[in-house]
Amino acid sequence: MFFHVKELQFQAKPTRPDPVFAKRLQEVIGGQFGEMTVMMQYLFQGWNCRGPMKYRDMLLSIGTEEAGHVEMLCTMVAQLLENAPISEQEAAANHPVIGAVMGGMNPQHAIVAGLGAMPVNSVGVPWNAGYMVASGNLLADFYHNLTAESQGRLQVTRLYNMTEDMGVRELLAFLIARDTMHQNQWLAAIEELEADGLEQVPVPSRFPRELENQSVAYQFWNNSAGTESAEGRWASGAAPDGTGTFEYLEQPVPLGPEPIPTPGHPLLYGTDMALMKEKANSQR
Amino acid sequence: MFFHVKELQFQAKPTRPDPVFAKRLQEVIGGQFGEMTVMMQYLFQGWNCRGPMKYRDMLLSIGTEEAGHVEMLCTMVAQLLENAPISEQEAAANHPVIGAVMGGMNPQHAIVAGLGAMPVNSVGVPWNAGYMVASGNLLADFYHNLTAESQGRLQVTRLYNMTEDMGVRELLAFLIARDTMHQNQWLAAIEELEADGLEQVPVPSRFPRELENQSVAYQFWNNSAGTESAEGRWASGAAPDGTGTFEYLEQPVPLGPEPIPTPGHPLLYGTDMALMKEKANSQR
Amino acid sequence: MFFHVKELQFQAKPTRPDPVFAKRLQEVIGGQFGEMTVMMQYLFQGWNCRGPMKYRDMLLSIGTEEAGHVEMLCTMVAQLLENAPISEQEAAANHPVIGAVMGGMNPQHAIVAGLGAMPVNSVGVPWNAGYMVASGNLLADFYHNLTAESQGRLQVTRLYNMTEDMGVRELLAFLIARDTMHQNQWLAAIEELEADGLEQVPVPSRFPRELENQSVAYQFWNNSAGTESAEGRWASGAAPDGTGTFEYLEQPVPLGPEPIPTPGHPLLYGTDMALMKEKANSQR
Amino acid sequence: MFFHVKELQFQAKPTRPDPVFAKRLQEVIGGQFGEMTVMMQYLFQGWNCRGPMKYRDMLLSIGTEEAGHVEMLCTMVAQLLENAPISEQEAAANHPVIGAVMGGMNPQHAIVAGLGAMPVNSVGVPWNAGYMVASGNLLADFYHNLTAESQGRLQVTRLYNMTEDMGVRELLAFLIARDTMHQNQWLAAIEELEADGLEQVPVPSRFPRELENQSVAYQFWNNSAGTESAEGRWASGAAPDGTGTFEYLEQPVPLGPEPIPTPGHPLLYGTDMALMKEKANSQR
Amino acid sequence: MFFHVKELQFQAKPTRPDPVFAKRLQEVIGGQFGEMTVMMQYLFQGWNCRGPMKYRDMLLSIGTEEAGHVEMLCTMVAQLLENAPISEQEAAANHPVIGAVMGGMNPQHAIVAGLGAMPVNSVGVPWNAGYMVASGNLLADFYHNLTAESQGRLQVTRLYNMTEDMGVRELLAFLIARDTMHQNQWLAAIEELEADGLEQVPVPSRFPRELENQSVAYQFWNNSAGTESAEGRWASGAAPDGTGTFEYLEQPVPLGPEPIPTPGHPLLYGTDMALMKEKANSQR
Amino acid sequence: MFFHVKELQFQAKPTRPDPVFAKRLQEVIGGQFGEMTVMMQYLFQGWNCRGPMKYRDMLLSIGTEEAGHVEMLCTMVAQLLENAPISEQEAAANHPVIGAVMGGMNPQHAIVAGLGAMPVNSVGVPWNAGYMVASGNLLADFYHNLTAESQGRLQVTRLYNMTEDMGVRELLAFLIARDTMHQNQWLAAIEELEADGLEQVPVPSRFPRELENQSVAYQFWNNSAGTESAEGRWASGAAPDGTGTFEYLEQPVPLGPEPIPTPGHPLLYGTDMALMKEKANSQR
Repeated sequence: MFFHVKELQFQAKPTRPDPVFAKRLQEVIGGQFGEMTVMMQYLFQGWNCRGPMKYRDMLLSIGTEEAGHVEMLCTMVAQLLENAPISEQEAAANHPVIGAVMGGMNPQHAIVAGLGAMPVNSVGVPWNAGYMVASGNLLADFYHNLTAESQGRLQVTRLYNMTEDMGVRELLAFLIARDTMHQNQWLAAIEELEADGLEQVPVPSRFPRELENQSVAYQFWNNSAGTESAEGRWASGAAPDGTGTFEYLEQPVPLGPEPIPTPGHPLLYGTDMALMKEKANSQR
Repeated sequence: MFFHVKELQFQAKPTRPDPVFAKRLQEVIGGQFGEMTVMMQYLFQGWNCRGPMKYRDMLLSIGTEEAGHVEMLCTMVAQLLENAPISEQEAAANHPVIGAVMGGMNPQHAIVAGLGAMPVNSVGVPWNAGYMVASGNLLADFYHNLTAESQGRLQVTRLYNMTEDMGVRELLAFLIARDTMHQNQWLAAIEELEADGLEQVPVPSRFPRELENQSVAYQFWNNSAGTESAEGRWASGAAPDGTGTFEYLEQPVPLGPEPIPTPGHPLLYGTDMALMKEKANSQR
Repeated sequence: MFFHVKELQFQAKPTRPDPVFAKRLQEVIGGQFGEMTVMMQYLFQGWNCRGPMKYRDMLLSIGTEEAGHVEMLCTMVAQLLENAPISEQEAAANHPVIGAVMGGMNPQHAIVAGLGAMPVNSVGVPWNAGYMVASGNLLADFYHNLTAESQGRLQVTRLYNMTEDMGVRELLAFLIARDTMHQNQWLAAIEELEADGLEQVPVPSRFPRELENQSVAYQFWNNSAGTESAEGRWASGAAPDGTGTFEYLEQPVPLGPEPIPTPGHPLLYGTDMALMKEKANSQR
Repeated sequence: MFFHVKELQFQAKPTRPDPVFAKRLQEVIGGQFGEMTVMMQYLFQGWNCRGPMKYRDMLLSIGTEEAGHVEMLCTMVAQLLENAPISEQEAAANHPVIGAVMGGMNPQHAIVAGLGAMPVNSVGVPWNAGYMVASGNLLADFYHNLTAESQGRLQVTRLYNMTEDMGVRELLAFLIARDTMHQNQWLAAIEELEADGLEQVPVPSRFPRELENQSVAYQFWNNSAGTESAEGRWASGAAPDGTGTFEYLEQPVPLGPEPIPTPGHPLLYGTDMALMKEKANSQR
Repeated sequence: MFFHVKELQFQAKPTRPDPVFAKRLQEVIGGQFGEMTVMMQYLFQGWNCRGPMKYRDMLLSIGTEEAGHVEMLCTMVAQLLENAPISEQEAAANHPVIGAVMGGMNPQHAIVAGLGAMPVNSVGVPWNAGYMVASGNLLADFYHNLTAESQGRLQVTRLYNMTEDMGVRELLAFLIARDTMHQNQWLAAIEELEADGLEQVPVPSRFPRELENQSVAYQFWNNSAGTESAEGRWASGAAPDGTGTFEYLEQPVPLGPEPIPTPGHPLLYGTDMALMKEKANSQR
Repeated sequence: MFFHVKELQFQAKPTRPDPVFAKRLQEVIGGQFGEMTVMMQYLFQGWNCRGPMKYRDMLLSIGTEEAGHVEMLCTMVAQLLENAPISEQEAAANHPVIGAVMGGMNPQHAIVAGLGAMPVNSVGVPWNAGYMVASGNLLADFYHNLTAESQGRLQVTRLYNMTEDMGVRELLAFLIARDTMHQNQWLAAIEELEADGLEQVPVPSRFPRELENQSVAYQFWNNSAGTESAEGRWASGAAPDGTGTFEYLEQPVPLGPEPIPTPGHPLLYGTDMALMKEKANSQR
């Protein structure tokens, strides 16, 4: 069960309105790696967590924190939208710069949301739950959490460089720092999972290794001409899982046969090799 | 530029048809972490790669390999669908088990695809590019690649346990082994990026650390009542990035004020505090 | 900013597992009118609210409560999925009923989520933010909130009738009662908005009435043959907004001309009336 | 069965082209509350209506009218797009204002549609049927219809204020008036449903009230710190459904226990509390 | 502007309910090539048509007819859903066949739509406007119309073979015949466009042929090993457009160079070849 | 199985960066008829092809070629994005034109992709597999392939006219030529299918013609007032399938009755005619 306090986790006040930047800032609210993603992702992982309580507690705690990040960003967007130009014709006629600003705004900010934040990304595509994951396997999920915090921090630093508004930058500097923490947190949690003997690479580690096709489990298949890929750590030496040794297959060849299609179902009217007529054959 | 050979990377032949399993197998073709995702993700990362050629080559090589994985799975699905029951009424009336099979099939396999594979997941939702990422920052992306291979291997092992068909299992055992390789590959590539001095945690490492809000960069905020989360590696000690020290904030408090909404734009007809009438106030 | 306590708002424990019902219950988690919709909708409305604080506070309060509803339903789903049959072949061979259960399960519950809840509806389509709205106009939004609670309560009562599990029914009876409250709450809030003089029907009430085309503002256009529609309250008498009088237009006719297409842009290669050749005309 | 006449319901002719406004106007064609939504929503509600014929007739009549609204808006968009600048480089080089216009156009209007209307919203996201509803319960649906007409009228008035083109405004003034009628119509229809004894609040009214958890059916749970929400009509007094009395729960507490996760399925490789090793425990 | 009559274009009455078939029939209502697609596609093509009136009139006429097809199918679905089993536990316990039927139903038909038709396909994915096209070029669009009618008729014949209900089959036989007409209609319209001199292959025919790269305009590039593809009509002889001659390129080679990535933007923190450090290089 | 060579099929190098055009060019990468669509469509058709090997080989060959088209376009987009303006405020303040450029960029190109190509269309909507088809019936699919190449070529020629960059135009001229080839190829393949006796119009040709409702199989229903549609080839004369004769139905009438809704399921709480009360009736 959740509770809310009205104060923000951190202040969110721009120096001046900037409707174009408001559009861009939406990426870290409702984009693939925005705060809505991590909020819902950590909560679902927490609710579905059957692991030790420290993991479950940690997931629910950070998911709840992220809800507050969505809140700060939405508060910021609403203020960036204040005084946005609404009537296009006059603006464009008199002030090219204002016209440019209007061209760069998300029109839904005015038409749909009345100058409020929306649950969409920086081009206006609504957030969807296909962005997130909660698999029940914490190691697999923690790697996703790590990429989410990495992509998220990357996007926020890019946005930081796109604005000079000190109020906006102050909020972004806060979020960048929280992403620093959260990247460290997931790396630490990955260590912990392994130290606890719960899971390790390759995920899932409890699948019996003898059941996989061990002959190809450490081979690099070089499917692109040239051998620059042979220069990397992944091409030779001990594999990071501590079990295998990398092998570089410079010229891979197929191990399976060409598939021979079988006749289709007569009631589904597919085109079928069996239908090929004498007449047709004799034509060529 | 790409070339194709007709032989499969590995054989893909089931012992007998199983239309319900065909539906499930779609998850690793067109699902969030299916082979279409890794294929397109690695190719886009390769095309956008401005890094050393060994990375670019490696990405294009593995992306090209994954296209062959889609091919094998599609070949398998088509064979699993052979002889699927089509006419529902008679089946259900005479053979409850067949009725159950029909209920469990993806009806589009018959109606839309004529008993062929589709670019959809195990519930029939079409693949979309919102699943994948190519950010230009290889460390952020390689973590996503690692999670994709972890989630993917997890799903394939689960599917392995759902079937007893030895032909299907043989293909899945091949794919599981490739996922073992690819998890190791991304871990090795992450090591390599750091060894090459190109990137490290926290991503992006070139953003000036002094610009982030350092006071919160290593704090765990305990937003869920109880302190089980204090027991984890992430709550104290040196952070994995080698720079900070974890701090546990048992009872976090807001650092920002309650936001005060500002008046809306008069031409957008939002509800506004300023509109509150005398009459209304006097009513309570 | 948000806080979480580990106890649930209400208990969520089924008498026995039921994976088919788990699939159905997803509708009220991640469907168009599920708890994710109302949670995010109320929070965004609260964050964007520029109206009197009592509305903003109320919105944030109920949005926070709804997050707890998602939590209870996810907890329930995970337990309904326990002991779900995984291996399909043996199940179907030996136990037609189990086969039926498997056919009716959401396969992603096993393959993707490891028997946990997912942010999807009852057919497996991921939740998306196109379901929700926060327009800045509270009266328009409160009507959406009312429909969401009405559709939601309707769906929960239908689910109630689909199960006989007393543990599930107990949770659903709690949610049904909360929906009763929330329907009443939105009706009361609509009254309050009008009493406060902030907004009334037709929304938005501040648009100057003289600017709309008043000749058609209270006419029922009967575009479907027959006049059964004339029997309703909407066909005659005073309109609910207290301003106009309904008029029934039994045989509506177009008020505008047939549109005459204008020539297309020559560089876009559209088919154009202007291209029609002499030769072509003479052919017919 | 449907018939079409070529004349428009009302005239749709702009004074001059305006490709940026064409992009914006798409919101009320293919947006969440655009005319495509109400058209399809009313038709599906009519087709699925098992209620008295006056309702069914009314639904089919208004759905058919709305198809004509889509038609007028598409006609308008095509004319607004006439003479749009196509070649970007020269435009931007010579005329900053034209460049701004081009930046603000929907590029698909030129590339995909050859300067015609599209079934998308103002940012270019295609219309989808997840926007609409037809539940079989007319009261629940009529509230959705009311919100659709409220949000729709709100959006059209905002668009009205964004343009000074008298031809465009004339069409919008017509649509605004029809939305006035339709808001009144749904309010009247809601009255009628209740007068006919078919349905009332709380929806669905035929679910036995004694089966819901009556102890919480009229309680406001104050999940956000502060008590501004106590000032509203929803916090005390008789509830609008005429049955209960509002109660304000200032400090709500959980009524359920903390959920205890149960062990996962061994073949799905989830992380599990049961796996926690001695070694792991002794490490901390 | 549109009008509606209550009688159906053709009768739509099943012999008996069949909720599993109702789910399947949704494919031709709300699927990629369902009646909603052709209805909206023809109407948008008509509204955007700048070509001779006979085409515009024809498009609007057939689009209006298709609206009536959606209506018949929705009417059918509602009747197929009558008496569907609702309570799952007892059904499954007592009657395996009923259990199978329930497993095969679309649960939203009961939970969301109250046993009515929905704007979704046979797996429950909502219709979206990304399925349709109206490009302004009638020849390009008429080919899409032809494929829509071909895929549509194919799906309806498959559905015909899946049921033995004579009432359902009668409606499907009507729809199949209309699809026969419409395939012929589009083929005739394609002929007419060419006869009118408005457009021909290759579309768009007004793009100056000398501006395309004529050296590759009639070459078959054999990018898959083996030469079975050389046996087809497309590998040699005169091309259907009457202008070129097919050429078979058995072993195609790249015509362009390997792309050399350029340095990224310093403020976006991409991984960059330029960053490669001395230290890193010396490590290998 | 697939292989890759690093050289491009054709060169892809712009004369100078143009971030606005980069956004537009995305339409033919990730749009409805972009190269991702044809690549995946041809590959799935090839994998599912049960027809003679020449078709299967041809499909796999062209699908593999199209993967190289995606590659060239992505390479082009990355170069068009070089040196894009990132910081908005200063750009807009000093250089209106640059401001216009920034307003016209896809902000995700900077924020999400670090100035690389994305799998999205020209407004930023991610590619989804609902754009493509592989039905198992080659004639139905080849018509879709033909429309894809027609729409695709149309879009590329429009883009050609929007830029004056000779490097971009050179690549587009190559793609336009390949689309010329591919339109011809599908027309030839359609001829071949018919010559081989595998399939013909109406698709599917093996459905027994006597089972369809032959009375309406060649009738044009004129559902839009006026008779301009009677002037077309589709209104009279022999139908293209060589079997029927077109008939023009100037004033079509319904052939079916008005549907009479049946009572709903009592446990689903739909509004029902049977519920209509005496009191209600007497009120009017």
